[in-house]
Amino acid sequence: MMTPQDVVAARRRIAPWVRQTPVITWDDHRGKPILKLEALQVTGSFKARGAFNRVLAAREAGQIHEAGVIGASGGNAGLALAYVAHRLGIPAEIVVPETSSPIKVQRLRTLGANVVVQGGRYGDAYDFALARQEVTGALFVHAYDQFDVVAGQGTVALELLDQVGSLDAVLVAAGGGGLVAGVRLALPPEVRVIAVEPMLAPTVRRAIEEGGPVDVEVAGLAADSLGARRCGDLAYEILSTMGVDSVLVGEQELIEARRCLWDEFRLVGEYGGVAALAAYLAGNIDLPDTTRVGIIFCGANSDPSDLVQTQTSVEE
Amino acid sequence: MMTPQDVVAARRRIAPWVRQTPVITWDDHRGKPILKLEALQVTGSFKARGAFNRVLAAREAGQIHEAGVIGASGGNAGLALAYVAHRLGIPAEIVVPETSSPIKVQRLRTLGANVVVQGGRYGDAYDFALARQEVTGALFVHAYDQFDVVAGQGTVALELLDQVGSLDAVLVAAGGGGLVAGVRLALPPEVRVIAVEPMLAPTVRRAIEEGGPVDVEVAGLAADSLGARRCGDLAYEILSTMGVDSVLVGEQELIEARRCLWDEFRLVGEYGGVAALAAYLAGNIDLPDTTRVGIIFCGANSDPSDLVQTQTSVEE
Ligand SMILES: Cc1ncc(COP(=O)(O)O)c(C=O)c1O
Ligand SMILES: Cc1ncc(COP(=O)(O)O)c(C=O)c1O
Repeated sequence: MMTPQDVVAARRRIAPWVRQTPVITWDDHRGKPILKLEALQVTGSFKARGAFNRVLAAREAGQIHEAGVIGASGGNAGLALAYVAHRLGIPAEIVVPETSSPIKVQRLRTLGANVVVQGGRYGDAYDFALARQEVTGALFVHAYDQFDVVAGQGTVALELLDQVGSLDAVLVAAGGGGLVAGVRLALPPEVRVIAVEPMLAPTVRRAIEEGGPVDVEVAGLAADSLGARRCGDLAYEILSTMGVDSVLVGEQELIEARRCLWDEFRLVGEYGGVAALAAYLAGNIDLPDTTRVGIIFCGANSDPSDLVQTQTSVEE
Repeated sequence: MMTPQDVVAARRRIAPWVRQTPVITWDDHRGKPILKLEALQVTGSFKARGAFNRVLAAREAGQIHEAGVIGASGGNAGLALAYVAHRLGIPAEIVVPETSSPIKVQRLRTLGANVVVQGGRYGDAYDFALARQEVTGALFVHAYDQFDVVAGQGTVALELLDQVGSLDAVLVAAGGGGLVAGVRLALPPEVRVIAVEPMLAPTVRRAIEEGGPVDVEVAGLAADSLGARRCGDLAYEILSTMGVDSVLVGEQELIEARRCLWDEFRLVGEYGGVAALAAYLAGNIDLPDTTRVGIIFCGANSDPSDLVQTQTSVEE
């Protein structure tokens, strides 16, 4: 079983390579939640934390050979892994499904990754990467279901706690559950951790209901970041042992949260990155006004061009 | 003559109404500058600080009557004043030139301001606002050349200093010079303050050269925020007495700074807002690597749609 010490060790390990991302208190005339601006992280999402921790730990253990690292992802995890490999001077192979956008593939190539386009679905790319890793001996870096990845993601919560002193509850987006599990592990048990998922991609919710990870149909606006089809085994173990709340948000709530972030702060969010904010705004979590709530804004890899019609929001 | 105490008083006065904006350290493999993310301020720029201070101080002094407040600006100063009036429940009249964009006028109206479109140039709107103020008795709020406005802008520097402990130099964009004068006033004399202006709008530079404010031709990408035609008298007095460095940036440097901010941090900046960063990136200021440099990123009211073709920047 992983322990909070694993997150502390991860934090020390990745410190020279990642940013301490800022926080801002939002006086929304309700609870003054604290936004953790993790979308300002290198590569535009928290994924760099887990990827650095996984690769640096393997390097310390002498587990990285000529073939370097391999991963399967056309999204933030792939971008983070390509960036990590680039910074550390290690070759990277990133397997992406045919559905990946040319812009994203181009970005991976700019970072020097060897991009392999394989299969019509994410599962095909994943299977291919695993098989290929057996042949090349590259280090496989999972998007969410590995010890060092989970520990790395948890560092965002340690950092947040240091920045704000204390917290009663934290809202965290969940796809495969690596981020929310790391956060749960990092924080003292008295801090409530709330996993937020789209109604159209409820993998953590379904794992809790079923007593273990099950395959789930996923769709919707946030599918490119929160669309893992199955909760990670590690994430499930941590969340079921330590306790987590689950909240689902609708598509319209994601749209409104993304717009709110722009109108209020001129920040660009991707739908997965604003899911936690969406849950807060929807207001169907019972949080007393005195609760110190943290909201992790965790991804900005989004085309901002639809945000043009800016409206300064009117507060009462 | 204004004193640093005026900024301290302003900070206390406006604290309930403005945000403490975050800072982020940028490990750019040179000097690790600190970015002050003032573009996350309410209304998307620092202008809310000066406007709140001016209006709140006047309210304390019983100087606000039924006609409320009046200002001339189709840009960030107007937006800030409209917002301040809205929050404080005071009527606002904002005079804008005919060249103002319909989106900006709409935004002012959304905030409840009475928008008067007057004259083909900013100077016409300004003259009209002054004349109208004589008739209505509204409080005139200048975009940069008033005691309480300058003191309010300076609060961003006090806040920054508290956040980072110490600083050797601060880069600050200048239009009419209200912001940079407030910053100069707020900081101890040993902190170098560098006023950054577009080559196409060098009002502070020309005032220093001429021994006093003079009218200057202004143009270029940042003209909507840094395009004041003349350095403020107050700003000139403070800057010439206390000392300031002056740096000019080209149009291409503004474009690159705005792109850098998006590529590195997924932050959207307006050209005026990124001028200080542009000067830092251009690298023609002699700053030893050990210098603790602050860069004020002070405005985000920009259409982000041209930033789409995102490239993750590659660090060496
Ligand atoms: C922006 C963003 N938020 C949240 C998540 C979910 O992370 P996890 O799969 O660890 O639950 C992802 C995953 O890619 C993401 O990119
Ligand atoms: C974003 C931004 N930066 C800088 C300035 C310059 O401020 P000042 O006129 O006080 O020098 C302005 C003025 O409108 C602005 O909007």
